[in-house]
Amino acid sequence: MQTITCTPIAFVSNTRLIPDDDYWGGIISTITLTDEFDQEAFLGLSGFSHVEILFHFHQVAAAEIILTAAIPREQADKYPRLGVFAQRKKLRPNRLGATCCEIVKIEGTVLTVRGLDAINGTPVLDIKPVLKQFLPEHITQPPWVDELMKDYWK
Amino acid sequence: MQTITCTPIAFVSNTRLIPDDDYWGGIISTITLTDEFDQEAFLGLSGFSHVEILFHFHQVAAAEIILTAAIPREQADKYPRLGVFAQRKKLRPNRLGATCCEIVKIEGTVLTVRGLDAINGTPVLDIKPVLKQFLPEHITQPPWVDELMKDYWK
Repeated sequence: MQTITCTPIAFVSNTRLIPDDDYWGGIISTITLTDEFDQEAFLGLSGFSHVEILFHFHQVAAAEIILTAAIPREQADKYPRLGVFAQRKKLRPNRLGATCCEIVKIEGTVLTVRGLDAINGTPVLDIKPVLKQFLPEHITQPPWVDELMKDYWK
Repeated sequence: MQTITCTPIAFVSNTRLIPDDDYWGGIISTITLTDEFDQEAFLGLSGFSHVEILFHFHQVAAAEIILTAAIPREQADKYPRLGVFAQRKKLRPNRLGATCCEIVKIEGTVLTVRGLDAINGTPVLDIKPVLKQFLPEHITQPPWVDELMKDYWK
């Protein structure tokens, strides 16, 4: 089986120690590049308002990964059973997260962002600027997503 | 050094054999899940219009990876020197790509999308539904991005 090996380019530091489902909106995180990088890696990033952070759900055990389908938050009264690739849940193959965050400040090799839904100590695999041209303009989604996301960014 | 091992969950098939910079908009790609999965993994995905594809720039050699800064497309008359994390170029640490694409159809374990900027044979590491609540609302970016992206999705 083909494997792809990644190494963390940075680590997250914040006050969030447990990956609860909601209330990520106010979380301020610092993302500190590893010693492999210097401040050149962030040159020009301050011209952008947002970054996309690719990260690893490092506390998810291999045995927890879902390969088929599951009910979001195990709430069968609210949500349908959904394939793992129809959800953004952390119990997923390769345990990769991808979230767009607002840049708060950049100092040397430390990037501070608002709204990263990753806990303290999370390994970061990539940082990309958010370009308007990479955002889809008109998207549609099932109505129950609004209920699922109701308190997520609060 | 900590390493994170990923395995492809799918592979891309399309007509694009060379990763030129532009003209990705019309590309139709099929993304076929590996034998580890069945159609349950896509259950409910048809309720969404877009997916985010995380993939591996598998043809980039380790020696090509940029850790500091570079001028986009080596065109110094048009673009400033930019840190690797202020660009979405493929010559980057961990060689990860992340692109939102329009869903064309889903049949069994084969997902067809429009506008994936990845060549034929690309290993896919994750597929996530695009949720309105995960898209930033008001972003800003430097003015030269419009020039850089002028023909990208044509």
